[in-house]
Amino acid sequence: MVEHSGLDIMCLNKYCNSSSSSSSSEHEKKTFTKIKLNLSADYPRKSSEILSGQYGTNVLLIGLALMLAIAHHGPSVTEENLLSFITCLMIIQLMWMMWYIWIRDRKSELQTEKDVHATTCWIRGGLTLLALLSLIMDAFRIGHYVGFNSCVSHVLGVYPVVHATHTIAQVHFLWFHIKDVIKNFETFERFGVIHAVFTNLLLWCNGVMSEAEHFLDNHKRRLYAQGYGNLTIVHSEPDCNCTTSACSMFSNSLYYLYPFNIEYHIFVSAMLYVMWKNIGRVIDLTSNRKRSATKNQGLILGPILGLVALASTIGVLVVYVIHVEESLQMRQSAISMFYCYGIIMLVFMCSAGASGLLIYRTDHMPTDTSENPSRQLDTELLFGSSVGSWLMSWCSVVAVLGSTSSPPYRWTNLIYSLFIILEKCVQNLFIIESLYRHRDDREDPDLPATPKIFSVTSSLAPPYNGILNRAYETPERDCVTMDSEQVESGQVYRSPRKPSKVLLTEGTVVEPPCTKRQILKNIAIFLLMCNISLWILPAFGCRPQYDNGLEQEAFGFSIWTTVLNFAVPMNLFYRMHSVASLFEVFRRA
Amino acid sequence: MVEHSGLDIMCLNKYCNSSSSSSSSEHEKKTFTKIKLNLSADYPRKSSEILSGQYGTNVLLIGLALMLAIAHHGPSVTEENLLSFITCLMIIQLMWMMWYIWIRDRKSELQTEKDVHATTCWIRGGLTLLALLSLIMDAFRIGHYVGFNSCVSHVLGVYPVVHATHTIAQVHFLWFHIKDVIKNFETFERFGVIHAVFTNLLLWCNGVMSEAEHFLDNHKRRLYAQGYGNLTIVHSEPDCNCTTSACSMFSNSLYYLYPFNIEYHIFVSAMLYVMWKNIGRVIDLTSNRKRSATKNQGLILGPILGLVALASTIGVLVVYVIHVEESLQMRQSAISMFYCYGIIMLVFMCSAGASGLLIYRTDHMPTDTSENPSRQLDTELLFGSSVGSWLMSWCSVVAVLGSTSSPPYRWTNLIYSLFIILEKCVQNLFIIESLYRHRDDREDPDLPATPKIFSVTSSLAPPYNGILNRAYETPERDCVTMDSEQVESGQVYRSPRKPSKVLLTEGTVVEPPCTKRQILKNIAIFLLMCNISLWILPAFGCRPQYDNGLEQEAFGFSIWTTVLNFAVPMNLFYRMHSVASLFEVFRRA
Repeated sequence: MVEHSGLDIMCLNKYCNSSSSSSSSEHEKKTFTKIKLNLSADYPRKSSEILSGQYGTNVLLIGLALMLAIAHHGPSVTEENLLSFITCLMIIQLMWMMWYIWIRDRKSELQTEKDVHATTCWIRGGLTLLALLSLIMDAFRIGHYVGFNSCVSHVLGVYPVVHATHTIAQVHFLWFHIKDVIKNFETFERFGVIHAVFTNLLLWCNGVMSEAEHFLDNHKRRLYAQGYGNLTIVHSEPDCNCTTSACSMFSNSLYYLYPFNIEYHIFVSAMLYVMWKNIGRVIDLTSNRKRSATKNQGLILGPILGLVALASTIGVLVVYVIHVEESLQMRQSAISMFYCYGIIMLVFMCSAGASGLLIYRTDHMPTDTSENPSRQLDTELLFGSSVGSWLMSWCSVVAVLGSTSSPPYRWTNLIYSLFIILEKCVQNLFIIESLYRHRDDREDPDLPATPKIFSVTSSLAPPYNGILNRAYETPERDCVTMDSEQVESGQVYRSPRKPSKVLLTEGTVVEPPCTKRQILKNIAIFLLMCNISLWILPAFGCRPQYDNGLEQEAFGFSIWTTVLNFAVPMNLFYRMHSVASLFEVFRRA
Repeated sequence: MVEHSGLDIMCLNKYCNSSSSSSSSEHEKKTFTKIKLNLSADYPRKSSEILSGQYGTNVLLIGLALMLAIAHHGPSVTEENLLSFITCLMIIQLMWMMWYIWIRDRKSELQTEKDVHATTCWIRGGLTLLALLSLIMDAFRIGHYVGFNSCVSHVLGVYPVVHATHTIAQVHFLWFHIKDVIKNFETFERFGVIHAVFTNLLLWCNGVMSEAEHFLDNHKRRLYAQGYGNLTIVHSEPDCNCTTSACSMFSNSLYYLYPFNIEYHIFVSAMLYVMWKNIGRVIDLTSNRKRSATKNQGLILGPILGLVALASTIGVLVVYVIHVEESLQMRQSAISMFYCYGIIMLVFMCSAGASGLLIYRTDHMPTDTSENPSRQLDTELLFGSSVGSWLMSWCSVVAVLGSTSSPPYRWTNLIYSLFIILEKCVQNLFIIESLYRHRDDREDPDLPATPKIFSVTSSLAPPYNGILNRAYETPERDCVTMDSEQVESGQVYRSPRKPSKVLLTEGTVVEPPCTKRQILKNIAIFLLMCNISLWILPAFGCRPQYDNGLEQEAFGFSIWTTVLNFAVPMNLFYRMHSVASLFEVFRRA
């Protein structure tokens, strides 16, 4: 990669000095020219990765420091400072994206390699939808600014305009360039991509903070209405009157759009992170092909139960949000209802996950121990984002056990918290074991390729060759190959005349493990919909941890809200990441 | 590994049902027997890793939840609850260690494989020293309990006794069993080891919390003395009088021993984590040999400058701790002095790191891109633990820029904070680039092997064969082989008669890069001692972030102390981990 001649010249020089000092000055000159050349040579890859990573982290930390100062509501730092900073970052990202597109349009030879696993059409479609909702949010913000423009900072007008431009440009970038494997100007592009990653992460943090503050204000207002008058509510409304009639509509609607905006930014930053990881990567062309998904017969129970869960979730959400604003008794009954509903959901989810694990136990397949950074990262993200929720649940357990008061939902809260912990453990085990099992490759090579499922890091997957080869060695493979027509026509158990038994060396007869696969697919789709349900609840205002008062009594207002501000966004990310991982499990099963 | 017969029996059963239903009940019986057998078979490795990891994480989180409740000083959870919980964990660990030692003593065939890279004599010696200081701490605690035993809970007496027993047993375990590669009862041992890891981590957290609380109380007392009377100080002294005369001595001395106890537990948990990672690992015997260190001539400037830094640090610490308790003016001058001293230190450290990087730039060696989980983890820990300090520094920058007051140290604080960020960036780049460079293997195979340097994760290192082979191909190798005798006798530049030129293909002459290596070794040892200095300062009470008031004005008391409680322990860990990594750099250079 990098030549040794800089060193050689240095060695040469030293020895010439000791043997013949006459030509030393000439050699020194040469040495310095060579050092200069070496310094301007390509920077080592690992170092430029670390350097750009440090740049990105520090950009994020500046933003976090500003947010912490704003959270104090002190005089020194205002929201305008933070928004100006984010606006600058977005403008820099816009400039980089324009440069990137321009240089690629100009030099057609740069448009060579693409990583087909980087994303799929449906994920980009979904992100485009989220981007559209973000654009509506920007429109509301602009409307709000126009209404109050006589008394608010112009930054509040510039920010949504830049954000809208940024969103449009970024969606264009996602559609046409996110799969690129960059091989030119690597060090510079690394900085550009990591800047984009951390700009989106900062926008995510900003969204999370705004939402948390909104919840906290609502919570304080409710406490105030109940007579706890010692909490100060900071009003964020401007000092002048709105010149249009829609201002309150704008500011109220904004909070229903926040969850989508938040998910948009975190998913875009994950995709850009994959692009960053791909810079300078040598793509293995044999693995760089899309793989077809397996067939989906017998998908009845899972989707039906999932839809029931989803429907009941929406019902619970509506009832909860309405009742929690009312009298103490109504509030307590709403919280009790939430916990009962939650326990039922979690019992079903635990059973589903445990059944899945039991099926894996009866169906021994060697685990795939090959090196796979994608899977490793997926596992770590799943595990890491569970921690927030586990901490919250253990805090609830400690609060219930140590509580002196006894509201009606005290023990249901305890059971609910324990089930939340158990459910995450079981689900993590189920997902991780699914991802670490050898994949049956039942696909027909002649079938048209359907896009591969998006996992946050799916494009980092190494070649599946090893797995494919070993899959051919398993007895199931024969089974599948012979029965593939039957499976496709759905006649497996209805045509006893067809000889579908396969004799193995041990003299036993093999059944295609279709029932097991069907059960696994049902479990995956059911868990997927349950995870969507458990994402919807906290995302749209059903957070009994704020309302039940037990934890607040044990930990105090400030510690408990700090724990929640840390744990709730992690939990939301966990649910979304589980949905993506479970979709992968569903397609692999 | 695991047989497929469970699946086969299932398949067989299904088909027998469709063909001959007479023997179905017999087959069902068989099936269930088989499933039962399969369920009791060995659990897949990845799943048992995740399962034990989840167990450990949740144990830690229960402890954290209890700590948070204690931090609130509410009536529901007291320190006795937490100490009882930790005592239980320690007793479980003791039982596991006894079982482990007993089973290994009984079955001599189990004492087979050892991972020689897992630790070294000097690191175990260091940990034994730290353990001795912990035992003194336990003795002080017991003395304190004896003095107040009429009015304090008995848990306060049981805890130090169990902790002392735990410490002694654990040191024994470290000396005789930490290198074991476990291959029997894998799943059970995994739980045992991870329990030990997280028990030590919880003891670390408990130490960090006690220390942070002590600092906060001191800080509040100081603020109270200056007239800020609105802060409540929670007195932790018992209600009765001490029956012995040494109680106050015991409780005061305790806080000087905390930093050692804290480092003891975090390092033990890192070593146990390595043991956990080693469970079931197949050790590559060719790589499982100790490697000798390189020679250390020309080590003058680095150690001298390092000692100067260390000496001045201790001077600054003493002056700071004395002056900060006095009048406002003395306090301000102490803080100013600290920042000036810090800036000088950091300028030197940045220059040293930058020189090292510059040497690497002039001395191109291909980076080692081989897979190496140890190095990867070292890099991640270094990067991850920098985040706390960076956040703290950016908060200081925001606070200074937004401040309305202007104490004398305002702008030195800004410069100091920016240098802290820069220094960490440069040092990380230097360490990581050193770890990722191909190692010259200049050792003589006939020399007696000296123990390999301990890095937190050094035992996870994969075979160096690839590196060794490639090292033979580099031109430097020839150079070194020819000059090794000279290098050893220190005559390199004093014996012009010996023909030490080596002609390369390009017709140039090669010098052994000894000067560069000497410079790198000096830089590494200087940075190492500077990092020890920067560990000593916050560990023993020099935390101007609490005292300067600027950040507290911008972020408010509770947000700023939360940031410090998170960032300061991370910074302490960063410094210690840097010391270990720089020692590795020093030995590799």
